[in-house]
Amino acid sequence: MIKIYTIFALILVQISAFAQSSYIEKIQSFRKANESQLLDEYLKLVSIPNIVTDTINIQKTAQFIASMMERRGIKPQFLEAKTKGVPPSIFGEILTPNATKTIIFYAHYDGQPVNPNQWAEGLKPFEAVFMDAALDKGGKRIPVPQKGENINPTWRIYGRSTSDDKGGIFAILNGYDAMIKSGFKPSINIKFFFEGEEEAGSSHLPEILEKYKNKLQSDLWIICDGPVHQTGVKQVVFGVRGDVNMDIRVYGPKRPLHSGHYGNWIENPAMKLVQLLSSMKDKNGKVLVKEFYDDVVPLSETEKKAISQVPSVEKQLKNELGVASTEGNEGESLIERISLPSLNINGIQSANIGKLAANVIPTVAIAAIDLRLVLGNDQQRQVQKVINHIKEQGYFVITEDREPTDEERQKYGNIARVSGKLGGYNAQRTKMDLPIAQEVIKAVQTTQKEPVVLLPSGGGSLPLYMFEQILKANTITVGIANHDNNQHAENENIRIQNLWNGIETYAALMMLK
Amino acid sequence: MIKIYTIFALILVQISAFAQSSYIEKIQSFRKANESQLLDEYLKLVSIPNIVTDTINIQKTAQFIASMMERRGIKPQFLEAKTKGVPPSIFGEILTPNATKTIIFYAHYDGQPVNPNQWAEGLKPFEAVFMDAALDKGGKRIPVPQKGENINPTWRIYGRSTSDDKGGIFAILNGYDAMIKSGFKPSINIKFFFEGEEEAGSSHLPEILEKYKNKLQSDLWIICDGPVHQTGVKQVVFGVRGDVNMDIRVYGPKRPLHSGHYGNWIENPAMKLVQLLSSMKDKNGKVLVKEFYDDVVPLSETEKKAISQVPSVEKQLKNELGVASTEGNEGESLIERISLPSLNINGIQSANIGKLAANVIPTVAIAAIDLRLVLGNDQQRQVQKVINHIKEQGYFVITEDREPTDEERQKYGNIARVSGKLGGYNAQRTKMDLPIAQEVIKAVQTTQKEPVVLLPSGGGSLPLYMFEQILKANTITVGIANHDNNQHAENENIRIQNLWNGIETYAALMMLK
Repeated sequence: MIKIYTIFALILVQISAFAQSSYIEKIQSFRKANESQLLDEYLKLVSIPNIVTDTINIQKTAQFIASMMERRGIKPQFLEAKTKGVPPSIFGEILTPNATKTIIFYAHYDGQPVNPNQWAEGLKPFEAVFMDAALDKGGKRIPVPQKGENINPTWRIYGRSTSDDKGGIFAILNGYDAMIKSGFKPSINIKFFFEGEEEAGSSHLPEILEKYKNKLQSDLWIICDGPVHQTGVKQVVFGVRGDVNMDIRVYGPKRPLHSGHYGNWIENPAMKLVQLLSSMKDKNGKVLVKEFYDDVVPLSETEKKAISQVPSVEKQLKNELGVASTEGNEGESLIERISLPSLNINGIQSANIGKLAANVIPTVAIAAIDLRLVLGNDQQRQVQKVINHIKEQGYFVITEDREPTDEERQKYGNIARVSGKLGGYNAQRTKMDLPIAQEVIKAVQTTQKEPVVLLPSGGGSLPLYMFEQILKANTITVGIANHDNNQHAENENIRIQNLWNGIETYAALMMLK
Repeated sequence: MIKIYTIFALILVQISAFAQSSYIEKIQSFRKANESQLLDEYLKLVSIPNIVTDTINIQKTAQFIASMMERRGIKPQFLEAKTKGVPPSIFGEILTPNATKTIIFYAHYDGQPVNPNQWAEGLKPFEAVFMDAALDKGGKRIPVPQKGENINPTWRIYGRSTSDDKGGIFAILNGYDAMIKSGFKPSINIKFFFEGEEEAGSSHLPEILEKYKNKLQSDLWIICDGPVHQTGVKQVVFGVRGDVNMDIRVYGPKRPLHSGHYGNWIENPAMKLVQLLSSMKDKNGKVLVKEFYDDVVPLSETEKKAISQVPSVEKQLKNELGVASTEGNEGESLIERISLPSLNINGIQSANIGKLAANVIPTVAIAAIDLRLVLGNDQQRQVQKVINHIKEQGYFVITEDREPTDEERQKYGNIARVSGKLGGYNAQRTKMDLPIAQEVIKAVQTTQKEPVVLLPSGGGSLPLYMFEQILKANTITVGIANHDNNQHAENENIRIQNLWNGIETYAALMMLK
């Protein structure tokens, strides 16, 4: 009963909060008066490549963000990891007299890798391009609006990290700026924390959190990453799935062979890999790796209730994405499915297809896999389950970063190599009934009329367990991007209205009561 | 008994023939005196790109070959297909007074597509590079030998089509030249025929054969394509498998999705494709597509006997290729396996792997497949069997060159598109006991001591059935390349001694008795 009461209380908070939102109008006025400048700076930010492996440009990105902070009167500090050559986290701090709470606002400035060939014609990952609608809704490229020109908020900007997560940097820094310039004061001590290695698995974040433990004390981290709800309504997310990547490569002959002279005698590594991957999942989407679902911590009653109240989006999404069937049992919802651990093929390649295809038996076939983890899963344990599965399929498994030796090739009929891409991390969930959680919900609710959607956990991943483990910190995620932002893939984009809404959301959060 | 006698007769032919080979010494002397010039011209030929889709360079290749013919006193004629823009076949003719036979010598001048990124460091597909040994045996790049410098015949030359099939052009034209310049005369009327579209499926070859039917009358076509036997001994091959290519693409969501936000709800096309491909073949290499082996014409007794006499190469090859297991039942030999139709994955791709991998659910997954056919198989029927199989797996199959419509996406949970790359062709086998077949074997035998290996059919494919159907012609294949030439793949190469041997083989064939 107490749990059910909590849910009702949350809903009451939501409905009453919107009434207090008159200050939002002032934030909006500031934004309307400054749209050109806001976008001008943002476009510059988007145009700097931000892949972790591009060490020069990732540093340029960090420098640009530091200059954005300076322009807003926030003194930037680079928090360096112990390991050399790692992109720094960028820190800033605004103390508020008499504030009783400290909140750290997090976004990350690095982006997912890009394959420019896969982007639509006329789009380049690091050239911010305006489109008059989403590409898959027939959007056409339009010129960058000139100063003073009317900016339609349904237009989109395309480019890597427009949403994920330079959009987060935009919302946090401009939310702060709009609040100050509109004559308001924060209610809390504000800390800014912009990570530079999130898309590469946050491998060195623990070093930074350890080293700057004192500086990073807070009552809460608010994470600005990910989308709003698919219905377009803002959402507050209390947890994330964990994530760990693995590459599986299966070996064939030492040199590529003519598929006629050797085909159906020499085994084909692409066929072996598809047989191996196929053994991992049934047609219903159930992962067949032994013990895969064993460690999962069940949802609490509060969480189950919250899930039951999430608006249904399945029909809309299936229509939008052009799919007639989904994984899972009949009627299982998206939110139910992403409450489970997953095994996903991110990519697969062997030799060539299309115009480059040649009649060969390839030497190797490679799959990139990501395992999403939920509360209870441990990343190493989950990877080990998959390795065990591969062994059970009759494979000799190499887990080091090397090719098989001649001796191994002579000895084992099936050889696979499993290697991690870069670090990974476990899931994390913050309790939905903490007092500060309710204050966050209330603040976001002041910025919109529709009830804020509350998710016990999103499907995506962020290294939030590190904050919990190292800093004993609570984390709540409030994303701003449109759900159809092509995050992590080609043609990433953001809808301009989502940038504007983000300013309001973050200004409200910095004034939460 | 008659069949067994035939085999004995062939062997007797082999053993007696080598005794007559004194003229080979003269051919060798000519070659030794001209090695630099021979290679110089050949390197120029290799350095001209020869992919069919590169229309400018494929024409340059044809022009260069025409000039090679002119330098040898052979008047080149371009035989054009009815369809415009198709690479011509290049024809030439040398009439011999009192000759009673006419043989057409065939090679093709186009090459397999290349992906330069997959070639070893320092190698480019169209820069002929000298190596002091095979790359996978630790070969190192060496400078192109200067005029007069000693050329080690175990060196290799790397580049697309060094073996397949500019090596064939080299052997035929220089075999002819060496014969004439050494003071010999051909015993037959010689016709030269160099095709320009073989690696693209010889789609327009039937047009050319039809149009020039009269010009192309002969007693035999000798095909200079493919390798010598894996033991290094020359082989005469009486047939080829057919080949037909198909692309299978499986569709996922209309836009790429974040694997966290949607992973294990939206179906992953890469996982669906691996499940589909996996259903096509068992772990023993048996194709599970219904009726796949049904049309196969059994081998004749002569052919079975010949197969039983092929030297065993399985142990050598497994060692060389670094594989401990092969497809098929325990003890099945390479030659037995390639006497069956095959289903081979030439390439597979969905999204990205390695550094470019991102945590996504891809929109599409694609496999390039080739089906090798044996006598009795029909290319269209074999493709249809695979399409039927895909349908039986619950797929809606699109066979046109288009994407699925929104209506189809709403209606069908599983959508695959099957499309052909370019034409394909059926298998062909020439009877081993024809009198002219014995003359060919005898001629090749004059050039080496070891018994010539006789194969009823090679594993590779050539459009030989077209010659049979349109011209009622017999065809026999005598390849010259080293077996480890990486034909069709990256790092294609030829061993220089194989070029030298090729001159002798073809000079001998032009003087056959």
